[in-house]
Amino acid sequence: MNLTVYLAGQIHDNWREDVKQLTSQKNLSITFVSPQTNHDRSDHVGEAILGTQPSDYYKDDAASAINNLRTQVLLQKSDVVLALFGEKYKQWNTAMDASIAIALGKPVIIVRPESLIHPLKELSNKANVTVETLEQAVEVFAYIFE
Amino acid sequence: MNLTVYLAGQIHDNWREDVKQLTSQKNLSITFVSPQTNHDRSDHVGEAILGTQPSDYYKDDAASAINNLRTQVLLQKSDVVLALFGEKYKQWNTAMDASIAIALGKPVIIVRPESLIHPLKELSNKANVTVETLEQAVEVFAYIFE
Amino acid sequence: MNLTVYLAGQIHDNWREDVKQLTSQKNLSITFVSPQTNHDRSDHVGEAILGTQPSDYYKDDAASAINNLRTQVLLQKSDVVLALFGEKYKQWNTAMDASIAIALGKPVIIVRPESLIHPLKELSNKANVTVETLEQAVEVFAYIFE
Amino acid sequence: MNLTVYLAGQIHDNWREDVKQLTSQKNLSITFVSPQTNHDRSDHVGEAILGTQPSDYYKDDAASAINNLRTQVLLQKSDVVLALFGEKYKQWNTAMDASIAIALGKPVIIVRPESLIHPLKELSNKANVTVETLEQAVEVFAYIFE
Amino acid sequence: MNLTVYLAGQIHDNWREDVKQLTSQKNLSITFVSPQTNHDRSDHVGEAILGTQPSDYYKDDAASAINNLRTQVLLQKSDVVLALFGEKYKQWNTAMDASIAIALGKPVIIVRPESLIHPLKELSNKANVTVETLEQAVEVFAYIFE
Amino acid sequence: MNLTVYLAGQIHDNWREDVKQLTSQKNLSITFVSPQTNHDRSDHVGEAILGTQPSDYYKDDAASAINNLRTQVLLQKSDVVLALFGEKYKQWNTAMDASIAIALGKPVIIVRPESLIHPLKELSNKANVTVETLEQAVEVFAYIFE
Amino acid sequence: MNLTVYLAGQIHDNWREDVKQLTSQKNLSITFVSPQTNHDRSDHVGEAILGTQPSDYYKDDAASAINNLRTQVLLQKSDVVLALFGEKYKQWNTAMDASIAIALGKPVIIVRPESLIHPLKELSNKANVTVETLEQAVEVFAYIFE
Amino acid sequence: MNLTVYLAGQIHDNWREDVKQLTSQKNLSITFVSPQTNHDRSDHVGEAILGTQPSDYYKDDAASAINNLRTQVLLQKSDVVLALFGEKYKQWNTAMDASIAIALGKPVIIVRPESLIHPLKELSNKANVTVETLEQAVEVFAYIFE
Repeated sequence: MNLTVYLAGQIHDNWREDVKQLTSQKNLSITFVSPQTNHDRSDHVGEAILGTQPSDYYKDDAASAINNLRTQVLLQKSDVVLALFGEKYKQWNTAMDASIAIALGKPVIIVRPESLIHPLKELSNKANVTVETLEQAVEVFAYIFE
Repeated sequence: MNLTVYLAGQIHDNWREDVKQLTSQKNLSITFVSPQTNHDRSDHVGEAILGTQPSDYYKDDAASAINNLRTQVLLQKSDVVLALFGEKYKQWNTAMDASIAIALGKPVIIVRPESLIHPLKELSNKANVTVETLEQAVEVFAYIFE
Repeated sequence: MNLTVYLAGQIHDNWREDVKQLTSQKNLSITFVSPQTNHDRSDHVGEAILGTQPSDYYKDDAASAINNLRTQVLLQKSDVVLALFGEKYKQWNTAMDASIAIALGKPVIIVRPESLIHPLKELSNKANVTVETLEQAVEVFAYIFE
Repeated sequence: MNLTVYLAGQIHDNWREDVKQLTSQKNLSITFVSPQTNHDRSDHVGEAILGTQPSDYYKDDAASAINNLRTQVLLQKSDVVLALFGEKYKQWNTAMDASIAIALGKPVIIVRPESLIHPLKELSNKANVTVETLEQAVEVFAYIFE
Repeated sequence: MNLTVYLAGQIHDNWREDVKQLTSQKNLSITFVSPQTNHDRSDHVGEAILGTQPSDYYKDDAASAINNLRTQVLLQKSDVVLALFGEKYKQWNTAMDASIAIALGKPVIIVRPESLIHPLKELSNKANVTVETLEQAVEVFAYIFE
Repeated sequence: MNLTVYLAGQIHDNWREDVKQLTSQKNLSITFVSPQTNHDRSDHVGEAILGTQPSDYYKDDAASAINNLRTQVLLQKSDVVLALFGEKYKQWNTAMDASIAIALGKPVIIVRPESLIHPLKELSNKANVTVETLEQAVEVFAYIFE
Repeated sequence: MNLTVYLAGQIHDNWREDVKQLTSQKNLSITFVSPQTNHDRSDHVGEAILGTQPSDYYKDDAASAINNLRTQVLLQKSDVVLALFGEKYKQWNTAMDASIAIALGKPVIIVRPESLIHPLKELSNKANVTVETLEQAVEVFAYIFE
Repeated sequence: MNLTVYLAGQIHDNWREDVKQLTSQKNLSITFVSPQTNHDRSDHVGEAILGTQPSDYYKDDAASAINNLRTQVLLQKSDVVLALFGEKYKQWNTAMDASIAIALGKPVIIVRPESLIHPLKELSNKANVTVETLEQAVEVFAYIFE
């Protein structure tokens, strides 16, 4: 059995590499997909493909249209979604990816620090499992294969 | 024709009353539903019904379960969802309500200040319409009735 | 706003009347529907309509077909499902009604005594809210109307 | 053609091995998936991953969340569900797995002793086929390949 | 509570009036809908609206398109479908209406004489309840209201 | 029985009034809904609510977002969709409304002149019924009520 | 590209072999699945697995339950359904298989002689394509691969 | 990862070859599917398989039935839909393919010249991304693989 897991969350550091390494240590057969993780590329892809936009608002809308298309393709191919929340950033697109996965019937694991329990409580209650570290999330992956 | 509109968003001030008043001025036949708007009641409803919980984490989980049940009932009865985002608060439950509505095929109007264009860009692109003021949102409601 | 609530659970005593009375005391606008609550009628309806069956197995199958038709009609008309579990009886049809409601996207409240926490844990985790008394369940109903 | 079959039911003995052996004797190309069959592991997985919980209730809820995630992933990958019921245990999670499979449009075979005809009659009537032995269930599998 | 019941089946005699009379005797609040019951009108409606067609084949196709539109509207408004089969006629449209109702999750009652048990066995097994007389079908309706 | 019918098609003349008058002559209980029929209002609503846009492209996108929201609300409330095609205009939004209705399982009637048979053949084949005049479409409405 | 095609229809002669041979002549990459084509086995499978039943009615119901399970598994794996109708037999299970495929969004080709145009007209109108010979049906298969 | 992309649009020139060549230059693992691109074959396939029809109308209907079956099979196998619109032709079947893909939850990229912004604005707003050249569309494909 192979699983495909979508890694939703911020793209400011290399946390997805940690997940892959932890998974690799456990020899789990998982294919990871994710949003564009090059932050500059993600922000500028609209203008890169569609040309200069009239203002930041339109630049952002053009980029998000292409980012959303990418996510829609990859999320539909996934068996599980891991959504990471942290102290920094608004992360509404992470909340959106997790919520749409829930509505599509896809199992969702949320990873968030203790400090975010309160503001994430409704989404956390809708998700299947909420943990505090990536190690714990990978243990949940491993449990599916036991 | 009567419409039911779910008003998703923070519950720290009376913005929903503004929407109702603006709607009433235009004589639109809209029934508004919303999450629990008494903030204390919303936070404490878990313990109020289920009794004292072992810690804040469990208190929050108990409250959010009941809040999510309420939202699930009312969202399913709605024709349109208005989701308000502002500078303050994490508002991940607002992002969740809007995203689940989108996934269920319900039209969504987002209201957010200009300062939030960038962090909300993916959700905004998925929603039907994004405006900056409640007055504009009510004009969209009115347009449905024209 | 009026809600329709399906009361799933055993039909050996009058617990549904308690729910109705508690609801009535709070002036909640709820229409209750339920399986056939006359236990003899429920067990014998197959033979009553289709005639004598060759054995108890076929008698049971004939009755359950008609009971399932009734439940399917009424569950689809419901906004919320309350499922009561108790110490006695197998209650697999209650588990079935609750699970099908969950799969259909209908909010589910489970009522069960503390002694059943362990065997009901997976279903309880899938449901929206689990409480221990009918009074608590009616408080959850009331919360939707607040 | 290869089929994936989810084996729902109690995890107190090795009945799944019997199914696999019977299937292997008939050279059927079936991949079996199942809940965690190590009973201790299944009961303790919540605390094993999330740490000590405040009481048995929370320990059970943590374990069931992870068990439900596992089941959701594997059930969605299945073509058929076999649900075994026996004299012992409450088996409400078995009833839940079977019912959710039915609601998702997945074919369900129930295996139960004659003594359980009456309490299982509604679920049995909703399932595709009900048999009394694992041998009979495997004959139904074989029939799909004929 | 009011139910809407679609009466699928042949349109060569007045059996639907019998159903209505039996229902009226029991004071059941049921709205009945049905295909066009004027047989000539049903066969000729294509040419009546679209003009003369090149041959019987095209005349039939034009009529069936309009009959199917009518059925689609009315079936979607129904809570229950009663499908009557008899010795005469091919009745494939009746089988189609019943099967589509089943696939849409609508409860289906089949009425057929004993002589048709064998050829109808697969459809009968998929339907909720199969009876032999219209009186029995109306008893099932009544049971929903008990 | 009352039906709600969405009237998709161009908004350059008063053809919807003809439909309403023909329906009224037959005393059919139909509520008609439609896109914004004031052509200027439809084209300018984006800027009217959201303010001046940087160019015609953005003006059009803003208007279409609000028009699509209106259509989504009203189409979901409809039992039947009538889509009118004519010689003039591109009418891709009409094709979109009809196609989305088909995909949602809503019955669709297409009205088009003989000259458009060839370019509309795939959509016409997917729709329930295709006629050439509004009178014929209203006869189809009337047939549902017979 | 490989397609899976379900061959619905009577099991009294070897018409499925003709389809396979015609397909093989055209080198089309199609996997065919079908109901049990051994007529005796199909009629007796219920008693073969479940033991002697009290009467022909129960024998038929037991067999059809297992036949329906087989069809449900195989139909869900199919990309296209071919449904053959002929002069003989009631063929209501063929009508059921075709109708359920239509409701599930699966493309359906009907093969029927000219003499059955009238009684099959509603189902034929719902299906994608209706032809008169197996050769024509295989030409439609081939067209998908062109 | 491999993607399947459906190329909707006119079949009067070889634009699909350009897409394939551009994709091949970027080494993207994409399988392309499309409607019948031999225009004559597409227009005549109805009569080629079903025999001479009474008039152009019936010839067109027969062809479109078979074309729609092909599209339904291939669209359901696709992960993404590219829909090309140009100055010439009505292209309502292109609008239909794109709209049905949107309603099925499949991501859609529209390619259209600047001159078509206004008439395509509603469909463009419903699609994920709208670009002006095939090169831009292929850049969006490439972005999914980054």
